[in-house]
Amino acid sequence: MTENHDGTQVSVLGLGAMGSALAGALVKAGFATVVWNRSAGKADALVAQGATEAASAGEAVRASGLVIACLFDHDSVREVLGPLAGDLAGRTVINVTTTKPRQARELAAWAAESGIAYLDGGIMAVPSMIGQPGASILYSGSQEVFREHVALLDVWAASSYFGEDAGLASLYDFALLSSMYVMFAGFMHGAAMLASAGVSAGRFAEMAAPWLTAMTGELAGYAEVIDGGDYTVAGQQSLEFSNLGLFIEASAEQQVSAEPIAMVQRLVQRQVDAGHGAEGFARIIESIKHPAA
Amino acid sequence: MTENHDGTQVSVLGLGAMGSALAGALVKAGFATVVWNRSAGKADALVAQGATEAASAGEAVRASGLVIACLFDHDSVREVLGPLAGDLAGRTVINVTTTKPRQARELAAWAAESGIAYLDGGIMAVPSMIGQPGASILYSGSQEVFREHVALLDVWAASSYFGEDAGLASLYDFALLSSMYVMFAGFMHGAAMLASAGVSAGRFAEMAAPWLTAMTGELAGYAEVIDGGDYTVAGQQSLEFSNLGLFIEASAEQQVSAEPIAMVQRLVQRQVDAGHGAEGFARIIESIKHPAA
Repeated sequence: MTENHDGTQVSVLGLGAMGSALAGALVKAGFATVVWNRSAGKADALVAQGATEAASAGEAVRASGLVIACLFDHDSVREVLGPLAGDLAGRTVINVTTTKPRQARELAAWAAESGIAYLDGGIMAVPSMIGQPGASILYSGSQEVFREHVALLDVWAASSYFGEDAGLASLYDFALLSSMYVMFAGFMHGAAMLASAGVSAGRFAEMAAPWLTAMTGELAGYAEVIDGGDYTVAGQQSLEFSNLGLFIEASAEQQVSAEPIAMVQRLVQRQVDAGHGAEGFARIIESIKHPAA
Repeated sequence: MTENHDGTQVSVLGLGAMGSALAGALVKAGFATVVWNRSAGKADALVAQGATEAASAGEAVRASGLVIACLFDHDSVREVLGPLAGDLAGRTVINVTTTKPRQARELAAWAAESGIAYLDGGIMAVPSMIGQPGASILYSGSQEVFREHVALLDVWAASSYFGEDAGLASLYDFALLSSMYVMFAGFMHGAAMLASAGVSAGRFAEMAAPWLTAMTGELAGYAEVIDGGDYTVAGQQSLEFSNLGLFIEASAEQQVSAEPIAMVQRLVQRQVDAGHGAEGFARIIESIKHPAA
């Protein structure tokens, strides 16, 4: 075991690709790191680097005041931590397993009942980015835990704290990742349209990356309208003007699926049908805030 | 009428917000500009600046060797230009009316039959951006027309030429605009999820704009996989790993519509169902290239 970095002994539960990356970064930074994985053989490389392998999750928990959970999913977290509530009492859990906001809140409530300090994290990175510039991890739950361990958390990635509601980190994480996946699907739709005319995806990417980057400049303006609550303010493109029907027809004529843009058109159409056609495009958020029956 | 800029006399048909902006930029740049609009009163401001108003579309066409069409839609272009084929023979038409690729190709075929040189344009700007940095217009059709008039076209915006297929400019235009609208819908989904926890859209925009900008950096890599035709190449996030089901559940739990991310999930699921779950995320383009029956 290497020299203890700042007196913090830390245990990492779960050595999948992400858990291994997190544990490896801690070992490299000089933290006394205990590791555990349900199935054997995952700890070998980390032990060679200086980590200590625990024979059971309970042993790992009892070894450290700070326990990191990076397991397969929410159910795995409940299965592993649930029976150890007694051991965990008085200790700190930072859970970076991907969980829904509701699940993070459930774990926070269970931790509070069990006398466990709890911080939830949402990782905005792939394992290879851990410890590198560009990685970011969002946290919410106990601010005290965040403040106490921010030096350790910063070993992994840029750390941001969002509030005492343990579900917030997951909610921000999901909001950002969801917007990313939707953007990717929009790119794929454009690339498929152009592919129908023999244009390569690479050629389209050269144009789409700076174009979409420029168009992110519109988001603050949309947000201002949304937060202001008045979609009739002047200078906006109206919903009626956003004639996405042409895009849908053109997709069909090029024999590609119109699904990505048809999704947007449905959001537009519900607002037009409700009599808001002359209002600004930002109003499509109302179609999302108030789902169709 | 102001001094003729380079000997080019130009007529602009259609004085809506965009047509007026285009004609105004030409007058300001010193081109001898004839203008016409179906309904009266739209030309007054332009005439005050030095344009000449034609009493009919025919008069406007006969006044200039170069005719710009910026009309309401494709049907308007056919209604206005169709009866003037005889007058247009030997002249040049640059059509920047928003039309589908197929419609642009139809007009190009009609122009070729009628002895009219034809260039089609797709405007990537709102009217207030014409003549300003950041505006861009995509062209396709006659390369000769593009080369001859590029100085005039550059008065309006940065001009790019994409090929002799007159439908290409519209196709690029639609591909870029469609990807933009889809990105906006993804942003709105994220903003709606966070709004359910009391987070402002402005706060989300501050995070989403740099995040989505960073994620446009992934597009070139996806394009390389797509153009290479092998979705099994190592180092990609697999479709199975992209568990968008969690996002859909979280949307429902936050009581907002999951439509944007559910659209992506359907594209993913069709590939997983077809046995490609272990392949890379870029494979969702196959769901778009080959629409569901």
